[in-house]
Amino acid sequence: MASSECTVVSETRCFQGSVIKYEHRSETLNCTMRFNAYLPDTRCTLPVLYFLSGLTCTEDNFMQKAGALRYLSDRRIILICPDTSPRGVDVEGQDAADDLGTGAGFYVDATEPQWKDHYRMYSYVTEELPALVGRHLPVDKTRVSIMGHSMGGHGALVCALRNPGKYRSVSGFAAICNPSECPWGQKAFTAYMGDHRKAWADYDATALVKRYTGPALPILLDQGDQDPFLKKGQLLPERFIRAVEDNPEKQNLHLDNHMRPGFDHSYYFIQTFIEEHIQFHARHLLA
Amino acid sequence: MASSECTVVSETRCFQGSVIKYEHRSETLNCTMRFNAYLPDTRCTLPVLYFLSGLTCTEDNFMQKAGALRYLSDRRIILICPDTSPRGVDVEGQDAADDLGTGAGFYVDATEPQWKDHYRMYSYVTEELPALVGRHLPVDKTRVSIMGHSMGGHGALVCALRNPGKYRSVSGFAAICNPSECPWGQKAFTAYMGDHRKAWADYDATALVKRYTGPALPILLDQGDQDPFLKKGQLLPERFIRAVEDNPEKQNLHLDNHMRPGFDHSYYFIQTFIEEHIQFHARHLLA
Repeated sequence: MASSECTVVSETRCFQGSVIKYEHRSETLNCTMRFNAYLPDTRCTLPVLYFLSGLTCTEDNFMQKAGALRYLSDRRIILICPDTSPRGVDVEGQDAADDLGTGAGFYVDATEPQWKDHYRMYSYVTEELPALVGRHLPVDKTRVSIMGHSMGGHGALVCALRNPGKYRSVSGFAAICNPSECPWGQKAFTAYMGDHRKAWADYDATALVKRYTGPALPILLDQGDQDPFLKKGQLLPERFIRAVEDNPEKQNLHLDNHMRPGFDHSYYFIQTFIEEHIQFHARHLLA
Repeated sequence: MASSECTVVSETRCFQGSVIKYEHRSETLNCTMRFNAYLPDTRCTLPVLYFLSGLTCTEDNFMQKAGALRYLSDRRIILICPDTSPRGVDVEGQDAADDLGTGAGFYVDATEPQWKDHYRMYSYVTEELPALVGRHLPVDKTRVSIMGHSMGGHGALVCALRNPGKYRSVSGFAAICNPSECPWGQKAFTAYMGDHRKAWADYDATALVKRYTGPALPILLDQGDQDPFLKKGQLLPERFIRAVEDNPEKQNLHLDNHMRPGFDHSYYFIQTFIEEHIQFHARHLLA
């Protein structure tokens, strides 16, 4: 544990705890990264919840806009919000569009030459970041859950389904549930992994959930029925729900799925249902 | 009531209500303005709470970051968030700094030639906007309160103290309490009103509260003791508190004042105490 591996950029009081912004050199992404932690006041280890953000977001959006910190303070759960892509790197084409490159890492490990030296957000959020967090924050490493929004909902589902037992629960707001079959996912996966559908399946929640054989996994999904990206076929939650039914061991997949009338894709939607998500994770983290 | 005077830009579901963004032509400011409303689902009129934002903010900051909407939904109070200055106007020097001009209207009616055709945020928030809101939203015009943050805390106090009986309660987060005596206020007041200290006093809460003679006015102030602008002498809450004591009719000024250890000037501070502010206003609005 080198004390220089991770520096505190700022620390801000919120409820009975602090929002701490960290900066560190990432070996996985080969660049300098920032993440936010919410740390309730504590003298002992606490459970930890990861939140993965959506397209164009940074480590700040969820911290500032979700209204989650009150509930994490009450239930004494640490929150970790990583960024959504490598930053400050030099990759051709990474700033040409909102849905590829900067702010759009899609939580995959790229294999294409253009991207593979930096765009490895899957390994970053499942390995390097948790190890770093374990060295710098008082986390109970046996009590970890994960959630996300849109692209980050996809990321959370993939992390949980590929690592049985690593996360106690997973939840998504307006998650991209079947990226291999939607325009956003096809564009990103083609760029990052080439036209290798077999490789894509390892990062597709609908493909993964069909063949999940791990221990019991509680899953909570929330979706607004007025979400424009639902209507455009970017999210496809119905495919994921059907795939759960197709799993021969579906009794281990405890899916709680909500379609919310009138709600869209924004943080106003997240604000409204965040308490239910924190309660869901708290139930499994504190059990 | 011309139906074209005010158009709905967007409507977004949040809790048991909607965030509605309006656009309208302002006669007072001589430009097109936007404001946000949070409207709980209702078939009858509801009380209304105004929130005035701080330097550099727009009508969005409080809506997105304060975590207030849950409490307004529960208590069925309409929230109105105006912008912080005229927009899209052509005034020399208005974009030279964060603390003057665009995003920094300071809730005064400018009298200096350079500013007076547009920068009249005091009349806008106390007259034109409430009249417009009254025509387009189901507000109970006898139940109105006001609050704000930083420059907006100054604005809220000035609106309440200059209009006895118009607002049932007033509150501020990290309010600029004595603008005539702080660098931010002196710069803005000199620009907008010239070097006329007598005119300044009409927009200075500390000067106004000394000579307030209206009906009982409940005032709630919250301040973080780690606020960098407190340390720099921009906020001066102690002057306001002393001035309340100096008022011969101080029994009508019901001041509840909190210094919060460890908190700064940010929306993380506001998030933490917003429930107490909504409860305070609800007590007076729903009485």
